[in-house]
Amino acid sequence: MDIQNLSTEELQVLEQELAQEYQSFQEQDLKLDLTRGKPSSEQLSLSDELDGILNGNYKNEEGTDTRNYGGIDGIAEMKRLGASILGVAESEILVGGNSSLTLMYQSVLHAYLFGFNGPNSAWNKEDKVKFACPVPGYDRHFSICEAFGIEMVTVPMTENGPDIEALTELVTNDPSVKGIWCVPKFSNPTGIIYSDETVNAIAGLAKIAGPNFKVFWDNAYAVHELVPNTKALANILACAKEQGTEDSILQFTSTSKITHAGSGVAFLGASEKTLASFRSSLGVATIGPDKVNQLRHALLLPNMDALATHMRKHADILKPRFDIVLSTLKEAFEGSTLGSWESPLGGYFVSFDTLPGLAKTVVGMAAQAGVKLTPAGATFPYGKDPEDKNIRIAPSVPNLEEIEQAMKIFVNCVKLASVRQALAG
Amino acid sequence: MDIQNLSTEELQVLEQELAQEYQSFQEQDLKLDLTRGKPSSEQLSLSDELDGILNGNYKNEEGTDTRNYGGIDGIAEMKRLGASILGVAESEILVGGNSSLTLMYQSVLHAYLFGFNGPNSAWNKEDKVKFACPVPGYDRHFSICEAFGIEMVTVPMTENGPDIEALTELVTNDPSVKGIWCVPKFSNPTGIIYSDETVNAIAGLAKIAGPNFKVFWDNAYAVHELVPNTKALANILACAKEQGTEDSILQFTSTSKITHAGSGVAFLGASEKTLASFRSSLGVATIGPDKVNQLRHALLLPNMDALATHMRKHADILKPRFDIVLSTLKEAFEGSTLGSWESPLGGYFVSFDTLPGLAKTVVGMAAQAGVKLTPAGATFPYGKDPEDKNIRIAPSVPNLEEIEQAMKIFVNCVKLASVRQALAG
Repeated sequence: MDIQNLSTEELQVLEQELAQEYQSFQEQDLKLDLTRGKPSSEQLSLSDELDGILNGNYKNEEGTDTRNYGGIDGIAEMKRLGASILGVAESEILVGGNSSLTLMYQSVLHAYLFGFNGPNSAWNKEDKVKFACPVPGYDRHFSICEAFGIEMVTVPMTENGPDIEALTELVTNDPSVKGIWCVPKFSNPTGIIYSDETVNAIAGLAKIAGPNFKVFWDNAYAVHELVPNTKALANILACAKEQGTEDSILQFTSTSKITHAGSGVAFLGASEKTLASFRSSLGVATIGPDKVNQLRHALLLPNMDALATHMRKHADILKPRFDIVLSTLKEAFEGSTLGSWESPLGGYFVSFDTLPGLAKTVVGMAAQAGVKLTPAGATFPYGKDPEDKNIRIAPSVPNLEEIEQAMKIFVNCVKLASVRQALAG
Repeated sequence: MDIQNLSTEELQVLEQELAQEYQSFQEQDLKLDLTRGKPSSEQLSLSDELDGILNGNYKNEEGTDTRNYGGIDGIAEMKRLGASILGVAESEILVGGNSSLTLMYQSVLHAYLFGFNGPNSAWNKEDKVKFACPVPGYDRHFSICEAFGIEMVTVPMTENGPDIEALTELVTNDPSVKGIWCVPKFSNPTGIIYSDETVNAIAGLAKIAGPNFKVFWDNAYAVHELVPNTKALANILACAKEQGTEDSILQFTSTSKITHAGSGVAFLGASEKTLASFRSSLGVATIGPDKVNQLRHALLLPNMDALATHMRKHADILKPRFDIVLSTLKEAFEGSTLGSWESPLGGYFVSFDTLPGLAKTVVGMAAQAGVKLTPAGATFPYGKDPEDKNIRIAPSVPNLEEIEQAMKIFVNCVKLASVRQALAG
């Protein structure tokens, strides 16, 4: 469909057809939801043996009674697993509670209020603190910046990750830029994997930006392939060590989208020096992580092979959902100017760009037809997509039939909004 | 034993006897530990059915799938239990993760950086922020103040709680005092229960100190009786409502010393307004609490009767331990000037005061004889006991024989240090 070449009359006919179709969707009184990047019940059930898995034995391999207080780093088994996932040494990992977001928040708090290089390095000593935010990105990252009054400066995403030229220029010209948020693998929401060159460039940013610059590397989808043998992500800590910037890297991941989303285990990977500094404030804020839950996870996922086997079961459930989304988009928009998107090989999202100025309209129209989409703008800092074009589609929760139905409506809304825009313009 | 009336010669004889006994302890190469206020393995085992208790059903009474994300307040069953423990409405409770300390930390952070009454009420807008700290008290409370640069001003504890006259005077004369730490029931470490008058006075402090003053009411031992039917603690939120100061009260408790210490469930009780403000920053810091673990706890402890039955089993294990400590102290020091202590009816500690200037010496001597005690000074802000006399004894972990042995050594050390002080003085 290429509406640019249509006459006004042809557009009017098309508008009527699409509007009629739209009305028929409205009459069906549907309730479909493509908003949340969370696992479905079927996926959660893959880990249901977690409860009861201990079989009365609460001691870990080192003989630690996991039931009691203490052990801020987490248990050895889970340190090993986290170190393997993030590609760091066991001395470079800390195993937390059920939320990697909490580790990110505490890390920003630590940098802001206490400083990774002593009190004088705390960001709140600066007149102004800014973060580079590749867009589209993850709204919960942006919320942390907003909470701490950190100004967000956007950097465009490419198919290889953040635009490195733009990013380097930003960090070079503005010394108040103290951090960057990255989802380097199956990026939220575009689904791309950062190229080796991009990883290496980000690993070295602290050479320009100085020792108080931190990379918040949220590797949330580290093992979340939809198809086997996707491109490996370069090891950012290794890249940083080669450039002498290893203390600037904070890697996060969790089992939230591996086991049970709300009761998983979170990890922080960083240099020994960075971890030591972080522990000094974390130790004030907690009596230690839930080691019993860590032990449960260690039994369910004793090594990377077990993890890979487990993740294939997730892929078996998720892949058909992504296939529907992608084949529907392809059928509707391939070769047209009305929409563009990436075809992710993992993660939880498909990121779709409408023509400029239409994202809010499409999301609103879809809602009226019973399809809930993530609010337009949510993938940008302050909820403001300057071109009003990005929409994040999250197909993990609905069943196949629901996704098919929801995507039909989505396509109709995009087309109808586009035609109306052409007619108005 | 009353060494004041002994002649120098008599003291010398006594010193020799005690020194000989001390040496004999040293030769036994013992390793005894009275430091940590944590449950013993036997106590932890009372809750071992937690793992597997769900029997495959991860849905709570409202049909919520506890495995997934979300629900910042926690599940209904646990809100009900927490509300009963703290004596608040179900709209006045938030159920957190495994650490009430984390809720306290996040509350102080919220007051310090974000403000319970909007950004202008944030403590970091003030030139100086101070906390009233009843002493002896809990070192982890003091650590939170230190982390945020909050100056701690001590208030003496009495057998009814903090000295209300001193506290009122402090708050009246110094408007920079913005908070107070309280462990109101079976206080850490003195074991006393705050009197109704004291609770009422603390509930009303915000009338003097203003709306940015907060009471951090750490009711860690709310249901931790050693004997049945101890005095009830007055309901501080109810007292505050009568005085119009309900927004100043933050109550904390947890199941850490009820179920498994490191993997329990924490609670925050506060007015609806205070909770709403707190949620605004907590929601940025977490994807929600571990609801699966909350559901496990709800099945183990479905109501207050079940909780009471469970706590009696703890008392059966703990009481004989406290009995040894208290009877040993009584036998050694009753009617003497060498030591004073409270006889707690619950909680985890016995607080012992030596003659002024001897606590560090006694703790050091005990360590040399194989008995580890909490560092002298730990019960005071900045680790400094101005009279160097308070020692916290935590008898929950060692077995009865070990406590008996440890207490013999403790008594010997107190006597020997006292006699040597008398000889030196």
